[in-house]
Formats: sequence, structure tokens, C-alpha cells
Amino acid sequence: GVNPDLASERQTASFSVEKLTAWLDGGAEHTRIRRAVVEAIQSDPIFSRENQYFQSQNERYEAAVRKAVHLQKKMHEMGWTENGPEYKYIYRALSGDVAFLLQRVFKRSISVLGSEKQIARWIPLATQYRIIGSYAQTELGHGTYLQGLETTAVFDVSTQEFILNTPTVSAMKWWPGDMGRSATHTVVFAQLYIRGKCYGVHPFIVQIRSLQDHSLCPGVTAGDIGPKMSFEHADNGYLRLQKVRVPRENMLNKFCEVQPDGTYVTRGSEKINYLPMTTVRISVISDEVIIPLMKACTIAIRYSVVRRQSKLKPGEQEAKILDYQTQQEKLLPQLAAAYAFHFINNYLQELLDRGYREIQRKNFEPLPELHAFSSGFKAMVTQYCTSAVEICLRACGGHGYSLLSGLPSLYTKILASCIYEGENTILFLQTARFLIKCFMAASAGQPIPPSVTYLAAVDPGKCPAKNKLDFLSPDIYTEAYRHTAVRLIGSVVAKLQDLIHSGVKKYDAWNQCTVQLVQAAKAHCHYISVVNFAETVEKLETKPDIQKIMKHLCDLFALHGIFSNAGAFLHDGYISGAQMDMATASYLDLLAVIRKDAVPLVDAFDFTDKTLNSALGSSDGQVYQRLYEWAQKSPTNTQISPSYEKYLKPLLHNTLSKL
Amino acid sequence: GVNPDLASERQTASFSVEKLTAWLDGGAEHTRIRRAVVEAIQSDPIFSRENQYFQSQNERYEAAVRKAVHLQKKMHEMGWTENGPEYKYIYRALSGDVAFLLQRVFKRSISVLGSEKQIARWIPLATQYRIIGSYAQTELGHGTYLQGLETTAVFDVSTQEFILNTPTVSAMKWWPGDMGRSATHTVVFAQLYIRGKCYGVHPFIVQIRSLQDHSLCPGVTAGDIGPKMSFEHADNGYLRLQKVRVPRENMLNKFCEVQPDGTYVTRGSEKINYLPMTTVRISVISDEVIIPLMKACTIAIRYSVVRRQSKLKPGEQEAKILDYQTQQEKLLPQLAAAYAFHFINNYLQELLDRGYREIQRKNFEPLPELHAFSSGFKAMVTQYCTSAVEICLRACGGHGYSLLSGLPSLYTKILASCIYEGENTILFLQTARFLIKCFMAASAGQPIPPSVTYLAAVDPGKCPAKNKLDFLSPDIYTEAYRHTAVRLIGSVVAKLQDLIHSGVKKYDAWNQCTVQLVQAAKAHCHYISVVNFAETVEKLETKPDIQKIMKHLCDLFALHGIFSNAGAFLHDGYISGAQMDMATASYLDLLAVIRKDAVPLVDAFDFTDKTLNSALGSSDGQVYQRLYEWAQKSPTNTQISPSYEKYLKPLLHNTLSKL
Repeated sequence: GVNPDLASERQTASFSVEKLTAWLDGGAEHTRIRRAVVEAIQSDPIFSRENQYFQSQNERYEAAVRKAVHLQKKMHEMGWTENGPEYKYIYRALSGDVAFLLQRVFKRSISVLGSEKQIARWIPLATQYRIIGSYAQTELGHGTYLQGLETTAVFDVSTQEFILNTPTVSAMKWWPGDMGRSATHTVVFAQLYIRGKCYGVHPFIVQIRSLQDHSLCPGVTAGDIGPKMSFEHADNGYLRLQKVRVPRENMLNKFCEVQPDGTYVTRGSEKINYLPMTTVRISVISDEVIIPLMKACTIAIRYSVVRRQSKLKPGEQEAKILDYQTQQEKLLPQLAAAYAFHFINNYLQELLDRGYREIQRKNFEPLPELHAFSSGFKAMVTQYCTSAVEICLRACGGHGYSLLSGLPSLYTKILASCIYEGENTILFLQTARFLIKCFMAASAGQPIPPSVTYLAAVDPGKCPAKNKLDFLSPDIYTEAYRHTAVRLIGSVVAKLQDLIHSGVKKYDAWNQCTVQLVQAAKAHCHYISVVNFAETVEKLETKPDIQKIMKHLCDLFALHGIFSNAGAFLHDGYISGAQMDMATASYLDLLAVIRKDAVPLVDAFDFTDKTLNSALGSSDGQVYQRLYEWAQKSPTNTQISPSYEKYLKPLLHNTLSKL
Repeated sequence: GVNPDLASERQTASFSVEKLTAWLDGGAEHTRIRRAVVEAIQSDPIFSRENQYFQSQNERYEAAVRKAVHLQKKMHEMGWTENGPEYKYIYRALSGDVAFLLQRVFKRSISVLGSEKQIARWIPLATQYRIIGSYAQTELGHGTYLQGLETTAVFDVSTQEFILNTPTVSAMKWWPGDMGRSATHTVVFAQLYIRGKCYGVHPFIVQIRSLQDHSLCPGVTAGDIGPKMSFEHADNGYLRLQKVRVPRENMLNKFCEVQPDGTYVTRGSEKINYLPMTTVRISVISDEVIIPLMKACTIAIRYSVVRRQSKLKPGEQEAKILDYQTQQEKLLPQLAAAYAFHFINNYLQELLDRGYREIQRKNFEPLPELHAFSSGFKAMVTQYCTSAVEICLRACGGHGYSLLSGLPSLYTKILASCIYEGENTILFLQTARFLIKCFMAASAGQPIPPSVTYLAAVDPGKCPAKNKLDFLSPDIYTEAYRHTAVRLIGSVVAKLQDLIHSGVKKYDAWNQCTVQLVQAAKAHCHYISVVNFAETVEKLETKPDIQKIMKHLCDLFALHGIFSNAGAFLHDGYISGAQMDMATASYLDLLAVIRKDAVPLVDAFDFTDKTLNSALGSSDGQVYQRLYEWAQKSPTNTQISPSYEKYLKPLLHNTLSKL
């Protein structure tokens, strides 16, 4: 049965959970497809995640390979294809615990960087899993700064081959997924040398393991990089190449080619190289970040209405912890953020689709904007959601800290998203560079992309709010965000110019402004997120119940940001201290309003118990019983420890004789 | 050899590292003792932590038991005693990875809550490890709110026994350390019933496992609660008691007793019950929080001068990442905080010692202050240091995310400190309650404890700073912190009173103010930390070199707090926007100053490589070589996976035939 404290929360929803789910999915048809995929996957015991929290890295890897191989069969069986509507739900249904995910990256890099001929040769092999691909860019000593890569590819005219080499320990490829134990092939990024001249970093397809017996190819050293904070199932690997030869045809040559005589030819725009990174960053946001936050919110909020602690009113029974203002203030803003970022993801997808259409028409103009937005939002959303998941974990106290809650693994995995696909600080600085250019262009009356025209808008100078209810007006708070973003960008531009005018070298001036540049980029992303949320709510007029609760969440998201970054809004007096008190009052009032719908709002995410894999978050709220049952399956209980015989017995027997 | 990039950092220290170490240790004699203990422990292979990152929960547990048993021998051999000067360094040298740590808690609770007779009976048994003790307070459904515990102890006059019982699943004891697989005895907290009347929660000594064969005693169900985010070595346990009988003498009866006829008698003050919690919270700060932060700073800062990425100046080699302002702004404030909290720990120890002397003299007056300070600082320091360790981890990028960096295990362990020994939000609210009482007493002209007289001091109303250098004056910034703390406490008092005057029930009003009460309690702790740091620096006049660098760190700690919580200082205009810009400028300038001494400042913490157990943080800076060597020892490389034969071979052989 369902725990009555959880059941009662579902009686009073102010909206239809099913309708909200369908709207979030983009229509009831998508909900149906998603549920069918989840059901097909989760009813198949080969995809089970039971006991996952007890498994070693080796056991997790083996399970992931087993699932990856089985998935091919399953897809065939179910008639699912990579281009079908089911595809995006498969990964979600598996919760990511599957091997060979780099196959997609391998294929995408060939599709984008390879010639038609290369695509025709390699893509079918990879699609049919007749080779296993990886993507070897990062080195032990080199990450984001691609130009610093040390691996070399020297063209040998006499044999028409590239000789790939790892000259130092720090040049070893390090981190590529599926490379430690699985991959047969990988795309290696290396400095191209022709007749002693370096032409910069280029991609090469390199076979690293035999298709015959899976042994490492001559000159190849590879292995697993060992335990990480998460991703136990993934064989992130290292790769050392000692004069490994690949044919001339293995350099991916859509944009540049080495001709047989060693002539280096470029064609098209290299800028296009940024496009795959942009796409990956946006997909990170939806798959690796927003979904985990939604799961964490579901677990923490359900648990918070089952858990009772202390008394709110004397003489009554202990209160549900979600009835405490402090608990609401921990969890509900994270819930609002999960919605906000779901909508920002839609926004980014549209931006990407629009940009992609232009690029197809050889118009590369949207690239800088796409790059800036995908970078900034990847950084902002990963950072925000990582903190949010951590808050959910901590808000569940000791039980949140148990792996059985599911929260630790959500946290340790989402944390990685702040680091991979571009380290966040570096990404924010990319966005800042774009914003500064746009700001200066706007100041000079030059045209700027539509997404940043806010930089040139007229500013009222002071927030017009007169009472706390005014802070529930999107016009009031979006304008406050806009003003703050523009002020931060403007003031760092001024600082940069002052430094340069005073004789500081341009690169030094930049470095001295980077802390504030990061602040400015964050403010920009926060502003866009708030505006986009408000616009999404506005468009909901045909669904009044959903619009009403989404409006509350939008207000909460916006006011939480003002409350938590008060300094940025107070700094120049745009918001006064008295107004900040009004905003705070509205913010705290909203918590109590949204609290009533908290459980329906997470139910609408529509995660199955198997997806959550959490003793605290199951839809029946049988928290304590489940914790107890699951704990008993732990190897710490099922395996006999030799500790007693070896160490304790001698101690305690000594006691017996004396007691 | 030492990596030259790290070596060069040590050439230019502005102070003697050895002198700073000695001062931090409280004198060169302590340094000598500490080093001797560390050397004795770390040269003994039984205490080795090698390969720890590869071990399962069962392997970690067995190692911890082995170490605990060996430690008894070692202590005897070395002549170390529990009251000797070496004792406090043993745990540090072991980095906590040892079993039976609850023995101390078991003993402490008997010492504090037991009669002379009980102490004489049980303490020697525990000291000689002839029994293994635990401490069973928390239940599956009940944490901080002791009155909510469900376990019962019914006095049976006819047999002169207590019957201990676990009436529901949620009443099961859950989490106690050493209880899952090791303990023979535990102190169980249960609701005492005599003739049907409940007398509240009392402590009882209960034997749970046989000393003969370690089997569970009749009526006892116990086991391990399963995997957690850290503490793999600890057998945190569950315990279910089904009508387990213990003799009347097993209720700890220093303060209350059940006489043979069932008469319940109290004596002395129950308030003293708070003292052990106070002591434990303060010891958490030093052992579990500050030391890990110091380790994380050491690892991240050393790595950040070895790691090079991107170019700071065009044409030069790639820059050390610590030369980027953003990296400095991540790490150096955490370093300053490590020092600040080392000093706050000294402050709290003195407060505790003073209070303890009074309590010995039966003067219980210092208890509320001790309780409030230990609660607030436990919450503030654990929260601050947890974030700080996370920042250090993230600042090391992908390599920080590898378990081999040592940072993930520091993080997952320190995170627990926010939850155990009192959940932080609840602790902050305890502090807030004390502050509000003191504030109201001060307003009414009544006497208040010396530590909070600042609540009654005269306020200048506006910050007098005129330029950025003024913000390097401790008078300026401590006054700003004081003003802000008083304002936050005062305004929440006003809100509480307004609510109550407007007819809101007192408990509702309290709940509606809790978010702001937490803010006020944090502001108080932050203020005390800054003042205490500034006073510590002042007393250093005989060590000018150390005083100078400590002054920089104190300034940085204070200005970082202003920069990060700008809203609190700007709110009522105490600091203006223009002054905030000055404070920010000074803050950013300081980063570049302290950066020069960053490595010597972490070297002074004097951790051995074995203590750090980090591929990134070793004193020779051979980061890449060590990562590579350690990774090769991973079971993912040393054990053959069946995945190839089972899953990959069929796939790939299929390919061969077609290639």
C-alpha cells in the first residue's frame, strides 16, 4: 500500500498530473512512446539495475557491456531505430548504465569531420557494432586547450602513412570512454607534421585492438584509468601510441587533406568544428543534468512528506519535514530550477535547430552565438543542477547519504558534468567574450544577434516595485535581471578599458577581469532563463491550471535568484533594501503556496520506481521498510567476514576468561 | 626528483615554513611528537592505505578491524596512552580508517552518564578492548529529535530488569558505527516506562553479541546498513530488540535512577547531558573537517602549479593554472578558510575548557553559551569546509574527479559531517534561539555572556572606508561583519515580534522566520571567525614574517566573505556600492599577493605523502607519472574481464568475416 502521508499529498493537486506530464513531454503521444520504451526496457531482466549499489567497478563494467550488446537485439526486436522517436527515451530508461556510448561520438565526429568516402566506410561498421569506437582527444597533461596537445602524427610520404606517436607521459590520451577495455578503434587528435612543419591538431582514425582476439595492436599501450567518483560502468581509458602507422585515408578530411605528395589543402570553414561540441553540450544539459535533478527532486520531496521530525505545534504529532520553512527553502527552489532548465533546454534546442538550418545553407553567422549560448548554459545549468542535487541529498539527512537513497550516485555523476565537455570556468569566459563583443557593438550602434538585443534596451534606472505583490510580476523581476546582467557586463567592460588605458597589457587586463567576467556571463544566463520561463508561462493560456502553478514556479525561480544573489541587485540601488525585503517576503510566501503541490509537481516527471532506483523515492513512500529490505542484500551482510576469526576472536576470548 | 614547477614555488617563500608549522602545532615540541607518531604509524605496513581506492566495502572493513587490533599492540609497544600527548595524532596519522572508533563514544557516555560503580565496571573492559562498544541513539525514523525515539525500556519490578523493545520498523536503531558486524555491547537510548508511565529517553547498556562466538544475543537482530557515500570501512549498523532483558544496573544512572521498587529518582542537572554533544561537535570540527580541508588545499594547490594550460601571454609556454585569477579565486579563499577555522578551533577549545572548569564547580551557567557556540560553529564550519573541499576537487578538473587524486574521498567523507552530530539547519536554529535571547536581553539592558556583548555595542551606521586600502584594515571589516550580524539578528527579532503581535501563533511565527534565523546564526559565526582571526594575527607581533602572511590571509578570508555575501552588507547601505567595489578590488589584489606563497602555505600543514594518499598532491609534484603508475594497479587492469569472451567476441568475429 501507499504510505498514507504520501497518499494524502496527491489528493489536493491543483492541476492534472497527467496533463502536466503530457505537456512536459511535448504531447500525449510522446508520453505514450516514452512509457512504452521504459516498460520494454525495464521489464527485461537483462537491463535490471537491482543490486547496482553493491557492485564493484568490474561488475558494473560487465553489466554495462552485457546491456549494450543486448540493446542491439532489443532495438531490432522492437523495431526501434536511431532516427525513430523512441531512441531518445532508451538512454533515459537505462539511466545511462550501458557501454559503448562513445560509439555515437565516434560516429558523429566522422559524420562531421569526414569525407563522404570516409562516412560510407566507417559509419555502417560502427552502426552495426562490428567495430567499437572511441574518441581520443584529452591527454593526461592537456584538456580544454586543444592547441596544447602533444600527440604527433607525422606524414611519411614514402609509405603514404601517418605515424602516430605519444612523445611523453603527459601526452598519453587519458579519460576517453570505452577505450580502457572495449574499443577497437578510436579517433585520435594529434599535431599533424608534414616535412617537419606543424599544421596543428587533426583527427585520425586509429585501430587499437585486434578484431581477431581483441589484443592491443602493435605499438599500442592501453588500459583503464582506474576508479572515479562515478561512472564505474565506463572503461575510461589511457592510450599510448609508439610509432603506430595508419594509412593516409585515415585522417578525417572533410575540411583539410594531405595529398599524396604531402601538400596540405584546406577547404570550407573550420568554424564548423565547433558545431559537434555545441550539439554535445546541449545534449549534456538535457540528458545528464536536468533529468538527474528531476530525479533528485522526486526522491527528496517524496521522502520529505513521509519523514516526520519534531513538532511544529505543541501537542500535535511530529510534523512532515516538508512543512518546515527551511526544508521548503532547500527543496522547492530546486524543483523550480528543474522546470526552468527543462524550458531552457527547449529554448536551446530551437536555437540550435535554427542555427543548424543556416549552417546547412553555408551561412556560418549563427556559430558564435550558438557557441556562446551552448557554452554558457552548459556551464550555468551543470553548476546550478550539481548544487541542486547536493542540496536534495543533504536535505534527506543520514538516509540521503546512504547509496540506497539513489542520491549519492546522482550527485557523483552530475558533478562530472561540470568538468567534461569543457570546464565550466573556461566556458563562462567564452560566453563573456561574446557578450563583451556584443555589448561594445551595441554601444557603437552596430547590429547584434537578436538573443542579446537586451544589452541595448532602455533602462528605468530604479526598480518600480512598491509592495511585495509587485515582485510577483514577471515584468518587475525580468527587468531587474536584465538590468543586473547589463550592469555587470558594462562594468567589466569599463574595468577592462581602464586597465588597458592605464598601460596594462591586454592579456593581463583580461586575466585581472576574469572573476568578474564569469559573474557577468552567469548573470546573462540567469536572465535568459528567467525571461524564457516567463515567456513559457505566458504561452500556456489554454491550460489555466497548469499555467497557474507554472507561474508560481517561475516566480519562485526568479525570486530565489534575487534572494540568493542579493548583492548583484542591490549594488547600484536598482533594488533598494526595502524592496529586497518585499522580494524576500514574496519569496518566502511562495514556498508555502508551492509546498501544497510539491508531490504532484514531482509525480508529473513520471519516473518509474526502477528508474529512480531509490529506497527513499518510490511512489509508494514505503521508505523505512525498503531501506531495511535493501540493506539486508548488501554483501556486508551476505558475505561472511573473516574479521571475527582473524582479529576479534582472540580479543574477546581473552575477555571471557576474565569476566 | 621534484617537478621543477613545484620546486620553484618553494624558493621564494616570504616566511619559514618550519616556523609556521611549529606555530600551527602549538610549539616545536608538538611538531616533533606529531612527526614521530606519523612516522611510527606510516612505516608499519599493517597500517598501509595503499590500494585503498580499489577496495570493496568488505575489504575496507577487514582492513579497519586489522588496524584497530594492531593499534592496541602498537600503542603498548610505543608507550602511547589515551591521555598522552601522542594520542590526538594517532587518528590523524591513520586518516581515520580504523575500526572501533565508537569505543570512545561508548566510554564517554558511560563516564558522563554513569555512576562511579558503572564507570568502574565498564570503562576498564572497554579500554582493554575486552568488549567492543557502540552507541545506539538514532533510529530509522528518528534523528535529531530525541523525544521522538520509539524504542522502549519497560521496568519489570518482579525480575529487577528492563525489557528493551523495538516496537516498529521505524524504531530500529540505524546508523550506529561499529554495530553492524563488530560490537558486543552498546548504549541504547530508549523511552523508560515504569508501571505504564513514560519517563522519557534514558541510556541502557545492552549486550548484543556473544563474547563466546560473536553470535547475536537472544532477541537481537543486527546487521550492516549497506553502502554509503563514504565510510566504507565502518560497519554502521541496524539493531532490532525483541524483549531483550538487561539488569536494573544497566541503566546509566548518574543523574537518575530506578530504585528496586520502581521509584524514579533524579539528581543533579540534566543539562549536563548536553556536554558530551558539545565536546563531540568541537572535536568534529578539528578532526573531521579542518584537517580534510587542509589536505584538499594541499592537493589542489600543488597540482595547480604543476598543471599548465593555455597561454597567459602570447608566445610564452602554457601557464601554471594557479596563475589564472579564476583559479586563485577558487583556491586561495579556501586556504584562508582552513587557517581561519584552525584558529576558531583554538577559540572553541578555550571556550570549552573554561566552561568545563565552571561545570566541574557545579556552575552550569556557561552551558547555553557552550551549546550555542558548538552548535553554530559545527554547522558553519562543516558547511563551509564541505563546499571548500568540493571547490578544490572541481578546480582540479578531470584528474580531481579520479579517486586517485584523493579528493573524492575527502569530499564524500566531509559531506557527512554536515549531517551527523546534529543536522546543520537544526543546529543553526539552536544558535539563533540563543542569539535572540541575548539580543532581547541586551535590548532590555540585562547582562549577556561576554562572547556576545557585540550585540549591544554602538554602531557607526555607515562604513567609514574611503578607498580600497581601507578594506585591509581589520577595524573596518570586523565592524562591517559586526554590523551585519546585529542587523540580521535584530531584523528577524522584529519580524518575529510583528508576526506575534499580528496574531500569528508563536510556533508558526518561529517557523516563518527560520530561513532568516539561519542567516542570522551564520552571520554571527562568520563575524566571530573574522574577529578571532584578526585577534590571532595581532598577537603574532614577535613573528613578523608569519604575522605578515597571516594578515594577508585574514584580510582575504574577511573580504571573500564580503564579496560572496555582498547583499548582506549592502542591504541597509552600511557598505555602499562604491565601497563594495573598493572591497572587491582589494580582494582581487590580495589573490595575486597570496598566490606567491600558496605552496609554502600548504607545505606548512606538513602532511606526508602517505597521509595525503593522492596522485596529484605529493610533495614531489610528479603528478602524471603517479597517476599512470597507480592506474595500472587498478583491478580493472589487473583482473581479466569475462566481457570479451562473453559479449564482444561474438560481435567482433562477425565483423572479421565481413571486413
